[in-house]
Amino acid sequence: MGVSGSGKTTIGFELAGRLKIPFYDADDFHPQANVDKMTAGIALNDEDRGPWLALLAQEIAGWNNNNGAVLACSALKRTYRDTLCSVSNAVEFIYLEATESLIRQRFSQRDDHYMPGTLIKSQFDTLEPPETAITVQIDQSVNEIADEIITSITMEKINNKVANAADIGVVGLGVMGTSLARNLANNELKVAVINPPIAGEEYITEKIAQQFPEAKFIASTNYQAFVESLSKPPTILLMVKSGAPVDSVIDELLPYLPADSILIDGGNSHYPDTQRRAAYLQQKGILFVGMGVSGGEEGALKGPAMMPGGNSKAKSKILSLFTPIAAKANDGSPCIRWIGAEGSGHFVKMLHNGLEYADMQVIAELYDVMKRVYGLDNEKIANVFEKINAGDLESYLLSITIDILRHQEKGTYTLDEILDVAGQKGTGKWTVEAALKYGVAVPTISAAVEARILSGINHNLMVNSTLQHKYKSFTEVEIDKFKEALEVAKILTYEQGFSLIKSASDAHGWQVNMKELVATWRGGCIIRAKMLEPMMTALTDNHSGSLLADEYFNSKILTQKSSLNSIVEQALAHEVPVPALSSALNYLLTLAASQLPVNLIQAQRDYFGAHTYEKKNEPRGTFYHTDWSK
Amino acid sequence: MGVSGSGKTTIGFELAGRLKIPFYDADDFHPQANVDKMTAGIALNDEDRGPWLALLAQEIAGWNNNNGAVLACSALKRTYRDTLCSVSNAVEFIYLEATESLIRQRFSQRDDHYMPGTLIKSQFDTLEPPETAITVQIDQSVNEIADEIITSITMEKINNKVANAADIGVVGLGVMGTSLARNLANNELKVAVINPPIAGEEYITEKIAQQFPEAKFIASTNYQAFVESLSKPPTILLMVKSGAPVDSVIDELLPYLPADSILIDGGNSHYPDTQRRAAYLQQKGILFVGMGVSGGEEGALKGPAMMPGGNSKAKSKILSLFTPIAAKANDGSPCIRWIGAEGSGHFVKMLHNGLEYADMQVIAELYDVMKRVYGLDNEKIANVFEKINAGDLESYLLSITIDILRHQEKGTYTLDEILDVAGQKGTGKWTVEAALKYGVAVPTISAAVEARILSGINHNLMVNSTLQHKYKSFTEVEIDKFKEALEVAKILTYEQGFSLIKSASDAHGWQVNMKELVATWRGGCIIRAKMLEPMMTALTDNHSGSLLADEYFNSKILTQKSSLNSIVEQALAHEVPVPALSSALNYLLTLAASQLPVNLIQAQRDYFGAHTYEKKNEPRGTFYHTDWSK
Repeated sequence: MGVSGSGKTTIGFELAGRLKIPFYDADDFHPQANVDKMTAGIALNDEDRGPWLALLAQEIAGWNNNNGAVLACSALKRTYRDTLCSVSNAVEFIYLEATESLIRQRFSQRDDHYMPGTLIKSQFDTLEPPETAITVQIDQSVNEIADEIITSITMEKINNKVANAADIGVVGLGVMGTSLARNLANNELKVAVINPPIAGEEYITEKIAQQFPEAKFIASTNYQAFVESLSKPPTILLMVKSGAPVDSVIDELLPYLPADSILIDGGNSHYPDTQRRAAYLQQKGILFVGMGVSGGEEGALKGPAMMPGGNSKAKSKILSLFTPIAAKANDGSPCIRWIGAEGSGHFVKMLHNGLEYADMQVIAELYDVMKRVYGLDNEKIANVFEKINAGDLESYLLSITIDILRHQEKGTYTLDEILDVAGQKGTGKWTVEAALKYGVAVPTISAAVEARILSGINHNLMVNSTLQHKYKSFTEVEIDKFKEALEVAKILTYEQGFSLIKSASDAHGWQVNMKELVATWRGGCIIRAKMLEPMMTALTDNHSGSLLADEYFNSKILTQKSSLNSIVEQALAHEVPVPALSSALNYLLTLAASQLPVNLIQAQRDYFGAHTYEKKNEPRGTFYHTDWSK
Repeated sequence: MGVSGSGKTTIGFELAGRLKIPFYDADDFHPQANVDKMTAGIALNDEDRGPWLALLAQEIAGWNNNNGAVLACSALKRTYRDTLCSVSNAVEFIYLEATESLIRQRFSQRDDHYMPGTLIKSQFDTLEPPETAITVQIDQSVNEIADEIITSITMEKINNKVANAADIGVVGLGVMGTSLARNLANNELKVAVINPPIAGEEYITEKIAQQFPEAKFIASTNYQAFVESLSKPPTILLMVKSGAPVDSVIDELLPYLPADSILIDGGNSHYPDTQRRAAYLQQKGILFVGMGVSGGEEGALKGPAMMPGGNSKAKSKILSLFTPIAAKANDGSPCIRWIGAEGSGHFVKMLHNGLEYADMQVIAELYDVMKRVYGLDNEKIANVFEKINAGDLESYLLSITIDILRHQEKGTYTLDEILDVAGQKGTGKWTVEAALKYGVAVPTISAAVEARILSGINHNLMVNSTLQHKYKSFTEVEIDKFKEALEVAKILTYEQGFSLIKSASDAHGWQVNMKELVATWRGGCIIRAKMLEPMMTALTDNHSGSLLADEYFNSKILTQKSSLNSIVEQALAHEVPVPALSSALNYLLTLAASQLPVNLIQAQRDYFGAHTYEKKNEPRGTFYHTDWSK
């Protein structure tokens, strides 16, 4: 409160920002008649102010039912202030005290306000300074004024409930949920936590509760208490197992969620499920967001990459809550971007995982070639990867591969003891399914998924090879060859992945910004790699979304493809399977071919099924049929 | 009719078989009291016979409402016969006339009937020979008696309606529907036909009706008339576009279908749709069958391969209707087998198409290698394929490839003018989707599907190759190499396909008999090939369903895999894409590897996600986690 020109809007904004609650200007609630009067230079009388203040009192009560708010209102007379408190009395007045001369001086410098200087005197005449308000002199900087107010203010005094309310709730206290909850709490947020009683677990056991000290957390034992412990409208992050558990938690939470609650699914949900849930929850007035989170336990705790997509009304709240805990790229940019509409966040996270599958398979195949074609031991292979990792191909997956290759326990390499059967959780398969759905080829991701499937078959029993191959000799030159093969394979893999994202984005109207998406992958996540930087540049310059249309990557491929070719040929000659590397090479050769042999396939289809064909040298859309047997 | 021992059951069975109508024995309708009396050697009196004959009269009317039937009943007195005709008079009596001495002689040789010889005299005493019946002497062979009756009988006299009823209805008169309808009619069936008015078409236009002469067809203009024109319970074959049209035709037909109607979907429906429709129609009392039909227009007309699966109550009816029109394998066996429960027929047809995709892509790649690595022209390539086709690898697809390669119009090869963009209708994609669903790897089918997708991309624009490769010289030796590469690739492709069928069959409890399934593919269908014969043998001997576990195929692979390897290496060295051949080779090398590099993948997963791993030399199920960064 205070006379016009005392800085209510400026200071109010600053306070609202610091307290993370909304700011309102009482002037915005004036009936038009009042605005007209003031613009005409006529002071409002109390009859004018009555309905306006009564309306504000209603608004204040509404704000207090949610998170509270900062309101800028001159509130010069005690009776005005009493009216403001008439519906909810949880109001603390902050009086910005000023001399008339200071205000006159300020107004002489302003021209954007409808309060002419002639009305200033009437303001001071009307003013009845408050007795119990926090009173601050305005001849200081905004920061000094705000500091003074924050020091004086006792949130408890305003609204005990709101002050203790958690900023965000986390449902699901597995590895990822717990880590994200801690990460949020470490960033000065109060976090409500609850464990859904799935599979006979309890909401919160004594042991779980101990992990979440009261100073930073509110641990609830039922959903009602959990939602009530949150500031309003509540923002809740679900970190439960994808599939049915997400639906069941949503159904259990729903009865307690007011309109405009924000519900975020941070698990690895399948994007069609996210689309379905978003449509369902929109009907219920809930803002649903599917957020891809990558980085594993460590990333979740120290800074994950995050890809939220969903109801755009939730965008700013989500970015403000999660940006502080996101991983940082090398340039300091937080690894979080709003991806697009319903399902887009989980779609691109799925794609991230599909690329992760391919990256891992390619590295595994190169390891296999070094081992079985060149006879290198783990230490030597680690050295090769280390040299590769020192350059443009530096990546998280290469780094951990080096650690893994060198890891020993009791004098034996741990890696050598591991059973060669790979597990998978579904995101790789989903990626290939999506590729089929949108008519995009992702052969290297397919090969990676199939390689894991085949690892589960009782191999080595069916076809026994009798050949013994001599190891090839390994020189420094080979290191470059491996590096170049890896680089080319990786570019081609990401080309496949980007094509798929582009097709899905077009199909759903998500308008995914490819460059910004890649930006989120530069830190925190599993596929973080130095190569994402030139990819961002390529995707900025090139609206087709194709790396191959970019000069930098095109030239990388042209000058280095022979290395990929050479590694594949050597592997096959030594009977070492390289399905992912082969697929990348064949993908390249297919895209580079001036003529593909599928003219024969079209002829066959026309022969047995009269499917017709088009001709090379004619416009598309003219179809021919031949009676081939004649 | 006739006395006991005159052969009513034997002759009745024979007649029913020839007339394709059910057979009933009046004795089976006796009340227990009558049976007891006869067993005790006491002749029935007319009071005993009254309720029994009245019941039979009701049954006869019911049978006549359907297809009619053959009833064996002594019907010795005129009053008995009058009772039998009292509800429906569409009854023709056939009197098996015999002497008492012949009957006595016959009974002395029987011990499986409850009519003791002592009652024979009372039979003859009771007998009032009919005046208007077809009367046949029984001292002839069964065939002679039946021939005589069939000659004498006038179906029209029995029941005009039944005689004119169609044996089967066909909905959908596109290429496949029309051809199948003609094929059925050519095999002495009367066929009702109707065209569903999809997309503004009419049920039957004048032009369509002209294609189906009345002698063999009944062309209807609405579904009610269509169903009424069928013998009962009706059997209807749907030959409409897969997807929504199938559902809409079913919904339009349903109001007119009595219980136990048989509805066959002979289109290329997606098997989950077939499972859904089967469940829906079972509730309505309709027997639904999804039948895979392969062979294109020519096959449909001259003999397709057919793979029905669905409600087992429809099995014998379907096999009896369709076996005569099925393609014949070289050994004369008809290419039709009952596959299993709901969805199985369309599933294996989908797999057939997936294998077809792979077969076609492999042939196309070999053509491309001959052309671009060896510089062969179409004629020379045709010659190579012809030599290959003369041996164990003879197949329909190779045969048509030879025709295609040689086809010229106005002095230019037609093939060379065809645009190299391949279409696809979905069954290939469905196969890969199913593989993902059941956790089976089908890399060669995936590669074939992806090759078609990639053919639609504007290739040759993105990565321009600067290399010029010299053609390799082609000698007779190379022909063997191509033949062996094709053979190995084909074995490995079918191994993938069989694995998928086996997994799906296990998942759904279809109990698909792999050998019998392969038997249906030996004629009529697109993938018919000589190699299916040794595959049948392998699948008989080998319950694992794996060709690689079969000595014949295992030895083929071991002795010939180097040819596949060599072709792939040469292709890649010449920058000719061979995705399907590469995938088959990598599949083989993966299955043959004594150690796969996925131990590294498991280590990576454990590193970043604490997913744990198992160890090589320990029993499965013990999981380890390592802190790899230490």
